Amino acid sequence: MARINEHFAKLPAGYLFPEIGRRVRAFQAAHPDAKVIRLGIGDVTEPLAPAVVDAMHAAVTEMGTREGFRGYGPEQGYDFLVEAIRTHDYAARGVELAADEIFVSDGSKCDSANIQEIFALAAKIAVTDPVYPVYVDSNVMAGRTGTPGPDGRYPGLTYLVGNEANGFQPAPPDFGVDVVYLCSPNNPTGTVATRAQLEAWVAWAKKFDAIILFDAAYEAYISDPSLPHSIYEIPGAKDVALELRSFSKRAGFTGVRCAFLVVPKGVTGVDDTGKRTSLNALWSRRHTTKFNGASYVVQRGAAAAYSDDGLRQTRGQIAFYMENARLLREGLSKLGFTIFGGVHAPYLWLRTRDGLSSWDFFDKLLTGAQIVGTPGAGFGPAGEGYFRLSAFNSRANIEEAIARIQRL
Amino acid sequence: MARINEHFAKLPAGYLFPEIGRRVRAFQAAHPDAKVIRLGIGDVTEPLAPAVVDAMHAAVTEMGTREGFRGYGPEQGYDFLVEAIRTHDYAARGVELAADEIFVSDGSKCDSANIQEIFALAAKIAVTDPVYPVYVDSNVMAGRTGTPGPDGRYPGLTYLVGNEANGFQPAPPDFGVDVVYLCSPNNPTGTVATRAQLEAWVAWAKKFDAIILFDAAYEAYISDPSLPHSIYEIPGAKDVALELRSFSKRAGFTGVRCAFLVVPKGVTGVDDTGKRTSLNALWSRRHTTKFNGASYVVQRGAAAAYSDDGLRQTRGQIAFYMENARLLREGLSKLGFTIFGGVHAPYLWLRTRDGLSSWDFFDKLLTGAQIVGTPGAGFGPAGEGYFRLSAFNSRANIEEAIARIQRL
Repeated sequence: MARINEHFAKLPAGYLFPEIGRRVRAFQAAHPDAKVIRLGIGDVTEPLAPAVVDAMHAAVTEMGTREGFRGYGPEQGYDFLVEAIRTHDYAARGVELAADEIFVSDGSKCDSANIQEIFALAAKIAVTDPVYPVYVDSNVMAGRTGTPGPDGRYPGLTYLVGNEANGFQPAPPDFGVDVVYLCSPNNPTGTVATRAQLEAWVAWAKKFDAIILFDAAYEAYISDPSLPHSIYEIPGAKDVALELRSFSKRAGFTGVRCAFLVVPKGVTGVDDTGKRTSLNALWSRRHTTKFNGASYVVQRGAAAAYSDDGLRQTRGQIAFYMENARLLREGLSKLGFTIFGGVHAPYLWLRTRDGLSSWDFFDKLLTGAQIVGTPGAGFGPAGEGYFRLSAFNSRANIEEAIARIQRL
Repeated sequence: MARINEHFAKLPAGYLFPEIGRRVRAFQAAHPDAKVIRLGIGDVTEPLAPAVVDAMHAAVTEMGTREGFRGYGPEQGYDFLVEAIRTHDYAARGVELAADEIFVSDGSKCDSANIQEIFALAAKIAVTDPVYPVYVDSNVMAGRTGTPGPDGRYPGLTYLVGNEANGFQPAPPDFGVDVVYLCSPNNPTGTVATRAQLEAWVAWAKKFDAIILFDAAYEAYISDPSLPHSIYEIPGAKDVALELRSFSKRAGFTGVRCAFLVVPKGVTGVDDTGKRTSLNALWSRRHTTKFNGASYVVQRGAAAAYSDDGLRQTRGQIAFYMENARLLREGLSKLGFTIFGGVHAPYLWLRTRDGLSSWDFFDKLLTGAQIVGTPGAGFGPAGEGYFRLSAFNSRANIEEAIARIQRL
């Protein structure tokens, strides 16, 4: 008799994005002529940068030749990409990382779901609320959380509430946990942690010997040059923090698939005998045992995003999306909406109107304006009463969306 | 205090391929002029097929245009690839699968490492010995195995020994387990299961309500048309078996990264309350929560391997490697070696000579003939006294390798 993982049944039955998809399909079936504008799932819309396209073409050509063909690559990523990451993302901001502290992967969703494997099942995990669901769901599946209560919260997780009072950037608690997931610029709220806030987190982690899993997938959208892009810009962070980065939003790679995880050798945990172990060694073992490297063609494309042309072109894409965000912010502010985010991230976080629940607001926007957003409640109980709009779309659709909401 | 996963320390300290790499590097440092021929790691050497190259080029071009750009794809894989798989790999052999029973991924190493997550930690797991190490290591990391004994075996695993008496295809045991990993054509022994042997496994799984994880990564190398390529060619297998397939060896994709896992809806397990659950629903949840789809460009390349040109070209590659295998078999047989495999798989499994241990044989071949193979002991205690040679190389290197062994 094959015994299954009993923890899967503790996951919420309706995952957020499939439920959104279901409601949108039902609406479109009833209104086949409606032109729905999708500002829900955070997916890029601009074509790949020419420098990336050229590099991927060249890599495909290479793979078709005897001299240029590459089989299994290094699981951690090719040197040409790791060096580009070290130079442009870190050394340029004063952060020195060794090549073997960087692990290239096929996506941050995988990395953020897999990283929990290197911690004990007994490890106490903290997440913010609202939160990117993968952090929670991967811990539910592993059996760390127990069964959710009536509010949807898991008794085995520690929740740190983001709200208007703290600008959706909760402060460190006055107690320790084993591991905390932080995301800045934040998905879903679009808010960003200041240097002082990150310093407080690093000090907290040092005090309680805790680990910070810092998700910086949206760092390229930070517009204020004084804000840190990496948690390693905070002194001491290389002893306590892992950092997740992705090419998905930085270079339009959602359909191409490339990301990386930084695990500095100074970050340690303790095993059940009290022995200190480097998390770098653990992740290296996990990564090389369960993963076989990202596609060579994809890694060539990612490296090209760091060339002069690649940087200029991908920064142009980001500026384009952030101009969308500015238009949305201004247009909706004029209509009296209270808005967070959208300045250092491609997400706007609106307070719903008229006391509507976030799903009721979703339905109203869908049926009244044919606009799809994401209900805040889908990101946790503290997201109730809020709504996420993504700035990833064409300029025409963003302008049309603002006009429709105005009419509504 | 961050508590780490204490089970990682139960893994063998020296993983097989890194240890081989270490010895080869040491040899090359001492003998910089030696021309080492690598028949160790099973990595393809022929360039990508022209049909695959053309399809990947076209997909890269598409991704650079506004109309053709694709962001996040379906996590399960694009319809164009899933349909090609259903038609060519299954319907053509009389096996009907639904589209949502096929899950496209970035590699079989990931799939074979991740699949254990859907089973209970208490599930009793059986593996063959010798065995592809990922099946074992992923269960060690999850905490199912305990600490290895002096022979390297884990008390929490059930081992089914492959040996010369059973042709390295162990029969089903006379007791049940929750899950068994089978691999045919087999890595490392290169042997293949007959239809009768697979029928015995399916009957065993039905009798004991067990699950078979059937790894068919090398099915394209089967040369006898009467042998099954899929376990689903055995009646009843769709109730008890999952099947792993890969483009790595079938289309030279080791550096491109694409594979798939088949989870028929009829396969069920039991949770801790005794409730039957479809493994398809569990894997779907795992796959969509922790994975974000294989690269669009890669999926277009994989689909092209099923076009008329793609089939002809990739079959040509396989025929080329299998001619290498034939030359190796013949050449080494003439020298008096006892050889298994190499007829329906690109691996030859040699009995070592003069009672040498498999690592001593490795060292002898490296220092005496500058040839790298893989010591059988790296695949488990039952691999001691054997040695794996891969047929993936140029014709010139294969011929040179035979000549060198002859001289040795």
